[in-house]
Amino acid sequence: MLRSFIEVAPESHFPIQNLPYGVFRSRNGGHPRIGVAIGEYVLDLAVLDQAGCLARTEAAGQGLFDQASLNAFMALGRPVWQQVRAEIRRLLSADEPELRDNGGLRTAALLPQKDVELLLPVEIGDYTDFYASRDHAFNVGTMFRGKENALMPNWHHLPVGYHGRASSIVLSGTDVRRPQGQMKPPDAAAPVFGPSRQLDFELEIGWFMGAGNPLGQPIPVERAEEHIFGLVLVNDWSARDIQAWEYQPLGPFLAKNFATSISPWVVPLDALEPFRIRGSRQEPEPLPYLKQEGAHSFDIKLEVYLQSADMEQAERITESNVKYLYWSMAQQIAHHTVGGCNLRAGDLLASGTISGPDKASRGCMLELAWRGAEPLQLSNGAKRVWLEDGDRLTMTGYAQGDGYRIGFGEVTGRILPSLK
Amino acid sequence: MLRSFIEVAPESHFPIQNLPYGVFRSRNGGHPRIGVAIGEYVLDLAVLDQAGCLARTEAAGQGLFDQASLNAFMALGRPVWQQVRAEIRRLLSADEPELRDNGGLRTAALLPQKDVELLLPVEIGDYTDFYASRDHAFNVGTMFRGKENALMPNWHHLPVGYHGRASSIVLSGTDVRRPQGQMKPPDAAAPVFGPSRQLDFELEIGWFMGAGNPLGQPIPVERAEEHIFGLVLVNDWSARDIQAWEYQPLGPFLAKNFATSISPWVVPLDALEPFRIRGSRQEPEPLPYLKQEGAHSFDIKLEVYLQSADMEQAERITESNVKYLYWSMAQQIAHHTVGGCNLRAGDLLASGTISGPDKASRGCMLELAWRGAEPLQLSNGAKRVWLEDGDRLTMTGYAQGDGYRIGFGEVTGRILPSLK
Repeated sequence: MLRSFIEVAPESHFPIQNLPYGVFRSRNGGHPRIGVAIGEYVLDLAVLDQAGCLARTEAAGQGLFDQASLNAFMALGRPVWQQVRAEIRRLLSADEPELRDNGGLRTAALLPQKDVELLLPVEIGDYTDFYASRDHAFNVGTMFRGKENALMPNWHHLPVGYHGRASSIVLSGTDVRRPQGQMKPPDAAAPVFGPSRQLDFELEIGWFMGAGNPLGQPIPVERAEEHIFGLVLVNDWSARDIQAWEYQPLGPFLAKNFATSISPWVVPLDALEPFRIRGSRQEPEPLPYLKQEGAHSFDIKLEVYLQSADMEQAERITESNVKYLYWSMAQQIAHHTVGGCNLRAGDLLASGTISGPDKASRGCMLELAWRGAEPLQLSNGAKRVWLEDGDRLTMTGYAQGDGYRIGFGEVTGRILPSLK
Repeated sequence: MLRSFIEVAPESHFPIQNLPYGVFRSRNGGHPRIGVAIGEYVLDLAVLDQAGCLARTEAAGQGLFDQASLNAFMALGRPVWQQVRAEIRRLLSADEPELRDNGGLRTAALLPQKDVELLLPVEIGDYTDFYASRDHAFNVGTMFRGKENALMPNWHHLPVGYHGRASSIVLSGTDVRRPQGQMKPPDAAAPVFGPSRQLDFELEIGWFMGAGNPLGQPIPVERAEEHIFGLVLVNDWSARDIQAWEYQPLGPFLAKNFATSISPWVVPLDALEPFRIRGSRQEPEPLPYLKQEGAHSFDIKLEVYLQSADMEQAERITESNVKYLYWSMAQQIAHHTVGGCNLRAGDLLASGTISGPDKASRGCMLELAWRGAEPLQLSNGAKRVWLEDGDRLTMTGYAQGDGYRIGFGEVTGRILPSLK
C-alpha cells in the first residue's frame, strides 16, 4: 500500500490515496490559494509550483494554483488533472526525498489544517439538483400521493432534475438562517407569511464539472465521467411548508434557494476508482442515450449527525450510501446535455437526497419522521419532526479501503432563528 | 425636448432619452468594451473615461468601461449609474461643446453601429424566470386543466418563479438548434427520443440586477426598483413536448435550458420613468411584503415577427405590452429575496411570457395556435402550429414618448435543424 512520509491515521479522511483539492488562506493572513489535504496538513500547491516541483505537468508555471478558485485548473481537463495528481502522490510518498528531505520547502508547503481557513473552492456557475434516489422519490411520493402513484410516470425513464440557485451555495460551517416565506396550512383559507416550520436537510453528493461542453453538443454517457473533476457532500436545506405551497407548476424555488451547504474538500473522481460498483438494476431499460455497461456507481458511506443546542454530543440519525442512487452521475450528465445545454468548468451537479431501503438510511427529516407521523427520538429524550433553531446538522462520508479511507470531511451548519 | 448633436430619427430606438448600455468590439479588431447606443452610433465609454470626460462621476478613472462586461459598473449602485447617465446626456446634448466640437475625440468615441460587433453585455450569475402574466398563465392552464382549474391556488398570492439556466443565455443573432429529447406522445406506451416537434418562443422582458443583497437579508418591495440596472428583451425558447413529459414534479429543465436569447442593449430603468403606469388591480390583496402603492408597471409595446426560410419579409404575429404583467418587477424581486436568497450584480430576472387579453396579444405559439387547435395563418399561405426549421423569430419593443422612442432594439434567432 502506498504510504506518505507524513503520518496519517487509518481512520483519517485524507491519506495519500485521496488528495482532495481545496482553497485556503492562512489564519495569519495571505491571499487564498489552492491546496491538497494530507492527514492533518494542507499541501500548498502554489508553493510547490513556484519551487518547480510540478514542472513535469502541463499545469506548471502558470500561476494556476495561486488562485482563489479551482476553476482555471478544472478547465484543463482530465489528462492534466491526472498528471498533477501523479506528481503530488510522488512528492508525498514515503520513499521520495524531493519534498521529504527538503526542510525549507516542507515548512513552506505543509501547513497544519488548524492554521488555515478553508474557503469555497469553486466559483460556481450553474447549479443543478437531481432527484436520482429511487427510495427517496418513492418515499416522498408515497407520503403525498399514496403508494400506487408514488413515482411520476417519467421517473424510471429519465433522471428528473431542476436548476438550483448558485449564489446561495455556502461553505460548511456557515450558519443558516431559518427562512421566512408564504405557506398555506391545510386548515387556512388563505396563505400566511412567517418563519418556515418545516425546515429540513437533504443528504446529497455533488460533483463539479471540469472541462465542459459547447452549447449544442451533448456529452455522450460513455464520456461523461471524463468531465467530472471531483465530488463534495451537499446539504440542500429545504423548507417543506414553503415548498408545498409554491412548487406548482414550475418546481421548488424559495423552499431551496435560501442556502445550500457544501464540504470544502473536492475529492477527485480518480481517488474513488477502487470503490466503483454496479448500480441499481434499471428496469425498464433506459433509452439508448442513457444506457451504460459496467460499474458506474460508487460505494461511499454517508452519515448524518444532529446536535441540538442542549446536547453534549452529536447523534447519528442516518446511515446511507451513494450506491443507493438509481441514476449514475454519468447518466445525469448525459441527460443534462442531451438537448444541447452547455456545462462549464465549475458547474455543480448534485444527486438529490440519497435514501436507502431501510428506515435508518433515509436522507431527510421529511422521510425520517414520515412527515411528522413518526417523530425521531433523540437520546436526550427530545423528539424531532423538523429541524429546530440551534440544531447543528453535520454530514460526513467516506469510502472504506483496506487500511485507509477516502473521506469527504464534513459539511456542517447550524440553524439560526428567522429574522423578526 | 432634450436633443443630441447627433441626428436621431424620431422612430429610432436610441435617442438621447434612452442611452442603453452594451458591450461591443470593433469589427476591425480590438478588445471588448462598454458603450452606449445613440442613434446609429455607439459611444465608447472607455474612450470617454480615458479622456477625462466622466471625471465628475464616482465611476471615473478605474477602467470600469474598458471591460468585457457591465458587472463591475452595475455593482456600484444606482447613485453612480445616475451620475454617469447624467454626464453622458450632457456630453451628447446639442448645446454642449465638449464632445460636439472636439473632432478628434468624436472620431475616437463615436463608432457607427454597423462597424461594431455586439457581445453579451453581462456576465450572468444566476437566471430566474417568473410566470407573471395572468393572461398567459390562465391560457396555458385552461389548455391543460380547463377554465375552472386554469390558475393554481398559489398564483394570485405570489409571483411563481423558478431558476433557469445561465450558461445557455445567448446574444440576439445566435442561431438556435432544435433540441432533441425525451417526450411521450399521448398514444405511445413508452417515451421516445428525437427532435422536439413542439418548439416555441416566449416573449418576455428581463432585468439585470445591479447592486444585490447579502445572503439572509431580503430586499423590501419599496426598495426593489433601486436594485434594477436595466432591461432587455428575452426569448425563452421552449420545447413543449419535452416540457410536458419532464416537468413533474420539479419543473421545466431540458425544455428550456438549450437556449435563451437576449437583446444586446440594456435599457436603464431611469430611461423608462416617463412610461410608468399603474399595474393590474391585484385581488386578493397581496401579503404585506408584496404590497405596493403607486405606479410600478410600464407601458412598453412588444412585438413578435416570424420569417420562414421562404418568406421575403418578416410578418408580425403578436402585439403585446409589458403593462399586461400582473406582478411588478419590484414584487418579483421582493418575493425572490424574502426567504433570504441573495441576488448579485449581473443576475438576470425575467417576467415569463407576456400575453395580453386579446388573441393577437398572446406571447407564444402554444397560445397563438391554441396548442395546435387554431393554426396561425401566415400571409404566404403557410400555417404554423410550432416553429419550424429555418424560421427566424424576432422580438422588438419600445415605449412611445412625445416625438421619441425608448427602444430595446431587437432579439432575433433562427431555428437550425436538430443534430442527427
